Amino acid sequence: MKLVTTKSELDKVINTEHSELSVGLVPTMGNLHLGHLSLVKTSLSKTQRTIVTIFVNPKQFGENEDFGKYPRTLEQDLKKLNALPQSENILVFAPQSEREIYPEGFSTTIEVSGLDHALCGLHRPGHFKGVTTVVYQLFKLTNAHLAFFGQKDYQQFRVIEKMVQDLSLPINLSMEPIVREKSGLALSSRNQYMSPAQKEEASLIFKTLSQLKESFLENPDKAMASRERLLFAEPRWQYLEILDAHSLKEVSEQTSKVLVAGAFTMGDTRLIDNILFRI
Amino acid sequence: MKLVTTKSELDKVINTEHSELSVGLVPTMGNLHLGHLSLVKTSLSKTQRTIVTIFVNPKQFGENEDFGKYPRTLEQDLKKLNALPQSENILVFAPQSEREIYPEGFSTTIEVSGLDHALCGLHRPGHFKGVTTVVYQLFKLTNAHLAFFGQKDYQQFRVIEKMVQDLSLPINLSMEPIVREKSGLALSSRNQYMSPAQKEEASLIFKTLSQLKESFLENPDKAMASRERLLFAEPRWQYLEILDAHSLKEVSEQTSKVLVAGAFTMGDTRLIDNILFRI
Repeated sequence: MKLVTTKSELDKVINTEHSELSVGLVPTMGNLHLGHLSLVKTSLSKTQRTIVTIFVNPKQFGENEDFGKYPRTLEQDLKKLNALPQSENILVFAPQSEREIYPEGFSTTIEVSGLDHALCGLHRPGHFKGVTTVVYQLFKLTNAHLAFFGQKDYQQFRVIEKMVQDLSLPINLSMEPIVREKSGLALSSRNQYMSPAQKEEASLIFKTLSQLKESFLENPDKAMASRERLLFAEPRWQYLEILDAHSLKEVSEQTSKVLVAGAFTMGDTRLIDNILFRI
Repeated sequence: MKLVTTKSELDKVINTEHSELSVGLVPTMGNLHLGHLSLVKTSLSKTQRTIVTIFVNPKQFGENEDFGKYPRTLEQDLKKLNALPQSENILVFAPQSEREIYPEGFSTTIEVSGLDHALCGLHRPGHFKGVTTVVYQLFKLTNAHLAFFGQKDYQQFRVIEKMVQDLSLPINLSMEPIVREKSGLALSSRNQYMSPAQKEEASLIFKTLSQLKESFLENPDKAMASRERLLFAEPRWQYLEILDAHSLKEVSEQTSKVLVAGAFTMGDTRLIDNILFRI
C-alpha cells in the first residue's frame, strides 16, 4: 500500500506506475468499515490497481449537518487497508487540504436534476450537487476506469450514474451490496455516534424495510398502507418510501424494480438504508 | 466543407478523418456574420480541421427572451462558410434536433459561480449555466483541441475559461477581437432586429464605451462619475460598467486590466459591447 496526500504526488504515481494498468476507484470519506473494505476487495479483484480516496468533502454537508464531527481516523483506516490481501495494489489518496481537490478559486458545480425530488434529495438540499462535484474531481484526478459505490447510498449512485452518462465521462460504475451487522443494521461510519442501546434499537430500520418488501410482494396496496401507518406512527422516520427504483417516483404498472428506502433519526444520528428487488 | 447533422455522423467523421489532426472549434448559434467568420478564419489558420457548430441552445435563453425569433439561416450560413479560403477544412455540425446535444433524459447542469454577480450574469439569470452546459457538450462531442470565442461575450468567455480550468477539460481557449461595422457597432446576429435608424443610433454604444475608456485613462474618478451620469440619463442602458476585468468587481489598486462594458436595449433588441484595456 502506498499513501499520497497531494495532487502532484498522485499525478506522479498515475503517470509513472498506472499508465498501463486498469485502475479501480473507491471514493470514501474515511472511517472505513467492512462496507468500505468490501468495495476495496471487489476493486482489487477486478482491477490491477485500486485507488482509495479518503476525503471528507465539505461541499456535500449541509450547514446544520455533521461535517465538523464526522470521524477522521486516517491512521486506523490505513491499518485496515494494509491488512487486506493484495494490499500492495492499493494507492491511498488522502488529501490533507481541501485545496488538493478544489484549488484556490474553484467555483464550478455539477448538478443532476430529476432524481432529487425524493428521499435524501428532499431532505438534504444541495447534498447531491456536492457529491457529483467531488466525484467528478475524483474521477479526473485518479483517471480510474471503474468506480465502486455501495448500494446503501442508492440515490447517490443513481445521480452519479446520470452525471457519467450525461457528461460522457470515461468511467464505468459498479454498485455493491450493503454490508450489515448481524442485527441487520447497515454498516455506516455514523453508527459509532450511537450508544449500544441505540444501535440495537436501530436494527428496526432494516426489519421494517424487510417487512415492507415481504408485504409488497404479497400485496402492494397493503404494503403502501403499512408504509404510511409506520411512517406516521414513528416520528423518527425522516422518510420511509416504496418507490419505482428507476424513476424514484411512485410504483406504477411500468415498475420492474422496487426500492424500499428509509431514513431514520436516532438522537442526533441520521441513518439510511434500503432494499432493492425485482417484481 | 462537409455538413453533418447528427451526433453519430459527427462521431464517424471524428473517428475516421480527425483522429490525427489538430481540431479547432467555433461554437455558434448560426446566422453567421463577419465576427463569426473571423473566428472561423483564425481557427483555419491555427488548426488542421475546424468544426463550426450551429445550434440555437434553448438552455441559455430566459423565458422572456428571443429563443423563438432568433434567426435560423442555415442555408446562407453554409454558403458563407463555403466561400472562405480553405473551406475544405471545415466541418459543420448543425443538429436538427436538440436530442443530438441533450439526449432524452439529459439532466445535468454545469454552473460556474463567482463571475455572475455583474453584467449579463445579473440581468440574464440562468443564462451562463445554459452556456457552460452546452459548451461542455460541444467540447465533448467534437473532441476539439482549441476553441475560439469572440470578446464581445467577454463575461461568457471568462465563465467558460473557469469551467475548463476547474473541470480540467483537455482544451485550450482563444478569445478573438470584436468585429465592428464602420460606425463602431459591434457585429451581432441581433443587429438585424433593428431598423436602419436604430442601427445608426446604436453606434452610440461603442462611442460611449470609447469615451469612458479615454476618460478613465485621463482620470479614473472622473470616468466613474461620467459612467453614473450616463447610465442614469439614458434608461435604455441596462448596465454600463467600468470593472476590474479579472474579478469583474470594482476597479481597485490591484487592477491591471479594465473592462468597460454596456448592455443597451433598442426597442426589443438587447445589444452588448465592451472594451478591454491595460492600465
